[in-house]
Amino acid sequence: MNKVGVLWLVGAGPGDPELITLKAVRVLQQADVVMYDALVNEALLQHVKQDAIIQYVGKRLGQHSHTQEAINQLIVEYGRKYSAIVRLKGGDPFVFGRAQEEIAAARAVGMQVQMVPGISSALAVPALQGIPATSRGITDSFWVSTGTTASGQLPDDLPLAAQSRATVIILMGTQQLSVIARLFMQYRKSNTPVAIIQNGSLPKQVFITGTLADIEEKAIVAAIGNPAVLVIGEVVALGW
Amino acid sequence: MNKVGVLWLVGAGPGDPELITLKAVRVLQQADVVMYDALVNEALLQHVKQDAIIQYVGKRLGQHSHTQEAINQLIVEYGRKYSAIVRLKGGDPFVFGRAQEEIAAARAVGMQVQMVPGISSALAVPALQGIPATSRGITDSFWVSTGTTASGQLPDDLPLAAQSRATVIILMGTQQLSVIARLFMQYRKSNTPVAIIQNGSLPKQVFITGTLADIEEKAIVAAIGNPAVLVIGEVVALGW
Repeated sequence: MNKVGVLWLVGAGPGDPELITLKAVRVLQQADVVMYDALVNEALLQHVKQDAIIQYVGKRLGQHSHTQEAINQLIVEYGRKYSAIVRLKGGDPFVFGRAQEEIAAARAVGMQVQMVPGISSALAVPALQGIPATSRGITDSFWVSTGTTASGQLPDDLPLAAQSRATVIILMGTQQLSVIARLFMQYRKSNTPVAIIQNGSLPKQVFITGTLADIEEKAIVAAIGNPAVLVIGEVVALGW
Repeated sequence: MNKVGVLWLVGAGPGDPELITLKAVRVLQQADVVMYDALVNEALLQHVKQDAIIQYVGKRLGQHSHTQEAINQLIVEYGRKYSAIVRLKGGDPFVFGRAQEEIAAARAVGMQVQMVPGISSALAVPALQGIPATSRGITDSFWVSTGTTASGQLPDDLPLAAQSRATVIILMGTQQLSVIARLFMQYRKSNTPVAIIQNGSLPKQVFITGTLADIEEKAIVAAIGNPAVLVIGEVVALGW
């Protein structure tokens, strides 16, 4: 019988290397192989044992990214040779993480899959600026969306989110900022507070606030790009 | 001049004592006072130094809970005497955590406030069952809501959530399960998968799945109560 490794999907958190869980550190220490990508802070690799294989599977400057298919294939190949394969993903693996494709690939060859949740940037990055997802008397819910779907479109559900009183948190939305702001102004006051945090939790973080009416101009002045978290809602005014 | 301590709002995670961050552990180790409540796993108190004050501020069997006002007052009193006061909260302090009231009380007497995000039960508890918040091709967003607002009502925005394709995650919603299921069946197919996880991430966890049509009956059979996480959406079918 062939060896069949275990695939560990592990959340690396939003960037600050202290915002990873004890369980994630333990799993990294026991890993034979660690596959990580661009949103993972490389400082976390200090937890990996000396003789483990460390494999970068993200984008490199001026080079193409590993395709999802290539990553899936690597998981399967490592799974044939090693016991503990860690797929270390920025934030939480189950929040816009394409984890299902990796799970399916691993399962297809009989690998077990284990999950270690991470601190999601969607919540933690605003929180570190004092912006809560919910606050009693202001909002009872929050809605987290990607700004760009697989087909490159704005998500169909965004008008429903705009109509609600939910705090709306959008990842990877800065390129659609103009469209998003105009959509929300159809349903919410144009002075609704908005925040954008780029490279949240890291020393190079950029944080701007404004309103639906002026956030686009402010984002241009601050030269905001991805990875960034966009927060729309009255809770933004609570930030420090 | 009087001493003025720092208030640290620290996320304790969903229950499993390994699902706390390195930063939270470091802050607990340095704390002079740790105030914690019912949703915090007491195993986490092992990180607190020997001579620190440990204060329980949650409900006890057969006794009234500390009121929010009493907790705020304690923060202020400890802040006058000690340097580092930790408010350890289940999950993430900024997800339905009433953190703003504690922040306001601390600030009113000149205390600084610091935030250490935690793993939110809303995301991690489903994730540990293999249920992702989002999955490419199924849903681009997720909506997290409380099931019971401050006024005891169902949140106003729930019909908008029901109309969307978002994964809907409801905390503290089991007592409203019948109303919630009927509302969602107005907009989604009655065989839409639903999961409920009580005491998620802990050995005493109870996990049930069903559909909008039959989840209420199944919850009664399993005698489900709070704290529980309710997940509605096609992603539930991905669970393991």
